[in-house]
Amino acid sequence: MRQVKLLSATLAVLAMTSIVAKPADDITPPSGYRSWFHVNTMVVDKASPLFASLGGMHNVHVNTVGEAALKTGGPYPDGTIFVTDLHDFSVSDGSYVMGPRKALAVMVKDAQKYATTGGWGFQLFAGGDPKKPMVTDATKQCFECHMPQKTQDYVYSTYIE
Amino acid sequence: MRQVKLLSATLAVLAMTSIVAKPADDITPPSGYRSWFHVNTMVVDKASPLFASLGGMHNVHVNTVGEAALKTGGPYPDGTIFVTDLHDFSVSDGSYVMGPRKALAVMVKDAQKYATTGGWGFQLFAGGDPKKPMVTDATKQCFECHMPQKTQDYVYSTYIE
Repeated sequence: MRQVKLLSATLAVLAMTSIVAKPADDITPPSGYRSWFHVNTMVVDKASPLFASLGGMHNVHVNTVGEAALKTGGPYPDGTIFVTDLHDFSVSDGSYVMGPRKALAVMVKDAQKYATTGGWGFQLFAGGDPKKPMVTDATKQCFECHMPQKTQDYVYSTYIE
Repeated sequence: MRQVKLLSATLAVLAMTSIVAKPADDITPPSGYRSWFHVNTMVVDKASPLFASLGGMHNVHVNTVGEAALKTGGPYPDGTIFVTDLHDFSVSDGSYVMGPRKALAVMVKDAQKYATTGGWGFQLFAGGDPKKPMVTDATKQCFECHMPQKTQDYVYSTYIE
């Protein structure tokens, strides 16, 4: 259920890219995230109302700065970065097989710099391309949907052993 | 399709655990694999003929020793380890959400030690429990199904950027 809420939040990011109210954060796609701690996987299939905007395999990673806090449910120290690596998939005989990258979603913790959005900076890169940031108003497109997760420092992902 | 073949191979492991012909390899579950390079994700859903034995989310990781070889399609140097982290899942409104661990499958490269099985040692741990190794005959239960992948050093996984 939490994962579904996470999706709703991310959906908002994608759906509201036409809103331009605040400048985008100066976040870039981090390198090496595929060797960060693998937090969880979620797949948005065709039966989901979110499929059109968010269909695919979502693999969430957290850097070493945030690993310990993930296991306690937050709060997260400055320097924590979450990355959602979103890929297409195909279905073969009942098995879902990963395809090319659709997007990278990034959350960066800096309590001062991002004070107006819970201490988190947000960005989403179409195709994972650093030249295609989609978030132009992190408050409207991201933070408002993360607010209900305040008790977990605005993070939806939880630790699965 | 390759992923489906991988499943067939792993299915054989699970289906043939009653065969005891050779001693199990002395492989133990590696620590820290969730911070190894994330190779790919595959989900075996209820529609798959493999669901009863292998249903779940499969997340494949490779250690740093094998990363470069993954990107070229092998061959892999001694010391390479692949881990498949297999988890249950639930479906919520069309989204597949990760659940508890079902098993860990491990492949370890040591050309001399495992010469009779293509240079790879194989083991599968039920629930990821080091006390529950399921492979008692790596040739029958694992290697015979990996043989068709000889051109990729017997590995099914391929690099997805």
